[in-house]
Amino acid sequence: MSPYDVENLNVKDISFINNIKTMAVIGVSKKNDYFFLRSHSATFKGNVYAIHPSLKEIPNFDSKKIYPSLKDVPEPIDFVFIAVPAAQALEVMDECVQKGVKLASVFTASFSDAGTKEGEELEKELLRKAQNKVRIIGPNGMGLYYPKVGIQWRPKFPTTVGKIALLAQSGGLCNISIYMATELGLSFSKVFSFGNGADLDFVDLIYYLSNDPETDIILCYVEGIKKARGKDLMQVLELNKKPIIVLKGGQTKFGAVAAKTHTASVAGENKIWRSIFKKYNVLEVDSLEQMLYAATLVKNYGLFDAKKLAIFSVSGGYGVILTDLICSHGLELPQFSEDVQKQISAKFFAVGTSSKNPLDVSTQLFNSKIMSEVIDLALADKNIDGLIMDLPPYYFNPDFQLKKNLAFEDEMVTAFSLGHKHKKPLILIIQHLNFPEERGRVVKKLVEKNVPVFGEPLNFITLLPKIGKITNGFKESK
Amino acid sequence: MSPYDVENLNVKDISFINNIKTMAVIGVSKKNDYFFLRSHSATFKGNVYAIHPSLKEIPNFDSKKIYPSLKDVPEPIDFVFIAVPAAQALEVMDECVQKGVKLASVFTASFSDAGTKEGEELEKELLRKAQNKVRIIGPNGMGLYYPKVGIQWRPKFPTTVGKIALLAQSGGLCNISIYMATELGLSFSKVFSFGNGADLDFVDLIYYLSNDPETDIILCYVEGIKKARGKDLMQVLELNKKPIIVLKGGQTKFGAVAAKTHTASVAGENKIWRSIFKKYNVLEVDSLEQMLYAATLVKNYGLFDAKKLAIFSVSGGYGVILTDLICSHGLELPQFSEDVQKQISAKFFAVGTSSKNPLDVSTQLFNSKIMSEVIDLALADKNIDGLIMDLPPYYFNPDFQLKKNLAFEDEMVTAFSLGHKHKKPLILIIQHLNFPEERGRVVKKLVEKNVPVFGEPLNFITLLPKIGKITNGFKESK
Repeated sequence: MSPYDVENLNVKDISFINNIKTMAVIGVSKKNDYFFLRSHSATFKGNVYAIHPSLKEIPNFDSKKIYPSLKDVPEPIDFVFIAVPAAQALEVMDECVQKGVKLASVFTASFSDAGTKEGEELEKELLRKAQNKVRIIGPNGMGLYYPKVGIQWRPKFPTTVGKIALLAQSGGLCNISIYMATELGLSFSKVFSFGNGADLDFVDLIYYLSNDPETDIILCYVEGIKKARGKDLMQVLELNKKPIIVLKGGQTKFGAVAAKTHTASVAGENKIWRSIFKKYNVLEVDSLEQMLYAATLVKNYGLFDAKKLAIFSVSGGYGVILTDLICSHGLELPQFSEDVQKQISAKFFAVGTSSKNPLDVSTQLFNSKIMSEVIDLALADKNIDGLIMDLPPYYFNPDFQLKKNLAFEDEMVTAFSLGHKHKKPLILIIQHLNFPEERGRVVKKLVEKNVPVFGEPLNFITLLPKIGKITNGFKESK
Repeated sequence: MSPYDVENLNVKDISFINNIKTMAVIGVSKKNDYFFLRSHSATFKGNVYAIHPSLKEIPNFDSKKIYPSLKDVPEPIDFVFIAVPAAQALEVMDECVQKGVKLASVFTASFSDAGTKEGEELEKELLRKAQNKVRIIGPNGMGLYYPKVGIQWRPKFPTTVGKIALLAQSGGLCNISIYMATELGLSFSKVFSFGNGADLDFVDLIYYLSNDPETDIILCYVEGIKKARGKDLMQVLELNKKPIIVLKGGQTKFGAVAAKTHTASVAGENKIWRSIFKKYNVLEVDSLEQMLYAATLVKNYGLFDAKKLAIFSVSGGYGVILTDLICSHGLELPQFSEDVQKQISAKFFAVGTSSKNPLDVSTQLFNSKIMSEVIDLALADKNIDGLIMDLPPYYFNPDFQLKKNLAFEDEMVTAFSLGHKHKKPLILIIQHLNFPEERGRVVKKLVEKNVPVFGEPLNFITLLPKIGKITNGFKESK
């Protein structure tokens, strides 16, 4: 039985996606060096077929899997990737219905996105042809990236399977997100680049993902939905229990025009979107990067409300700036409780340091054993909800150490993981300085330990109150 | 004659700094592997002496340049770096006066920064000992980084000489800034880490740098100044003709406490600082990173007011987000003027693109020749003050090109330089994705061509209206 109770909801059941076994690429093009066929066939875990009316040979592709038409393929096809001109797409859709295809990614553009009456009509016709039998991602989208079964529209997407899903009315945004995710230690369950959203739209996909056992966190870039879908969206969000992080395109007058040009979306009243997001505990962000940063925090620590923070800085000045940034964003920097303060102070040994919050450890840092104890103490304090640390990457270059300590790097990496022991977020800033090797190496170790690392404080400080808000929102709605 | 007319101003003339020829490190420590001596002797262009009461040998250092006391050194000493315990620093200062030393960096902490009556008294005594004959940077500071003559408190600081100066009451902030600068294509004329600012303070240093022929842009991190210096500061700022970018520490209640602990600074009323910054066209930023980003923009394009922007994006979605971000920060995204629009539209050839502002070029990007022409046209438009571009680094990996074009990278780098031809800012976003090699290579090429590159839009969009404001402020005050 499908876990999807769609009887009382106006959404489409696409739970079959999790069982895709076969696929075909329709519209392989020598001119583009068989780009989409190459991408999919490199990783897809079942049979991939190439459909072309006349081609007999494709470099590095089994010629026995090339067929002039979908109907000639000797087995059922679950999923097709369509990259033929718009006019031909209609015919192809007929064939998909006949073949029993369940899901079609339509890469082809020049439907409603063209901004013409003809384009709009063509899109409607495409839907009619699909007869509600073939579910469509697109048109004007890149389709599906699904690492578990190896569906990918681009070569060299990461093959790691994660529990984060992304929906976006923009293939470019999906590409950037997918490649940026690796740096942040995020991996995807599936990514939908759904373009004009003619059939499967924002509402359908949110519903699917909020019930998808392969997905824990839902990210979305949405430009707009049809007016008639507003009520459906609210019903879907009402039922949702997962963190949703949304980037809304077309919030400004000019942005709304740009969104209309991009995917023919009507961006709608910003204040209506805002009130929906607020009501249903959707975390709204301002940029693509912020969307991924928020996902990084939630992936590593779940939902949390960290209002009272401690700072551990190697530079007194950086600690002061962090303090200002934290406090000007509605967060607090309390003093440690008396007994913890006493214990921390007892561990400080150098002049020019400060054992109060914000901790200014200066060159004491190189005594990584003692610093680990300080971090542990700070996190254990009942006055403290979380710890923010800054650590320039040159500290991980032995030439820059005032006192040599070979155990330093690994001891510190272990200490940075103490947030998990205390179930409190420990967030690191390792700046993008000209020590890419040191940074890369340490970030990789930290990512493996589920510790979030950012390049600068403004990457995440604005997100902390937002995460706190939806955390409390979910709690209250229970 | 000194270019510094300090007669009517309460500031110290330190123009002699530009002619430092000899130096000594007082307080060399085997325990710290002679850190400060190593740093300075590696690059200083004149004679460096080591002062130690008993040491006869120091690894990799000419033993003939080790003396038990400053007075034994057989030539005049312009500059000393002092790293002895606080109590000894007083005695050393006597010797500096006797020797005719002009400038002393006092690294030693535990003066007023200790937050005790004793520390305060010790600092006053240090000043008395200096007799206004030795100018002091510090105490509790790292002193001076001056690549032209090779003064550096840390090993492996960049040796490139630039025209940006930095003042900071925090050595850690200076370190981060110096290493981050390289990535952004910034080089320094000099950096002052002036700690408690007991002698040379914010006002003196700003005045010196605003008259320093080696400096074009002044960056500062300041936590506070003495109340009595307020009027002097305003006089100095009144005379200043250079862009000053300031990060004010201790703006919030907790931040002010942290600043007091750090350098015994009284952060003062935030609204007073704000009104001074506003009146004298000082650009205020919120983070260390923003300070350097603002410097990057101004270094590459001088002061500018770019209100009406065009966007060139490879992703329709990213273009929509950029549009929203630009318009929600008080900037505009006008349409191209009619004739320019006609010419740009004529160059667009692929479906799924948009030739209107925001330009959505999609895979047309790989036709770098045509794209260069589009960039040139957009920048020439009288409706447009500047161009924002996003370009994920994977476009520079040949494996990711839909159509191979070996000339792509260099043609695009040349096209990105077109801002200089049109005297309008062209600002690039190349995201920090998992293509560090491609990003590093292209950023290096762009930095050489004075093109600013950022990792995400929120790095610089908030800065554009601020730069516009001080640009207009300076114009009006002429």
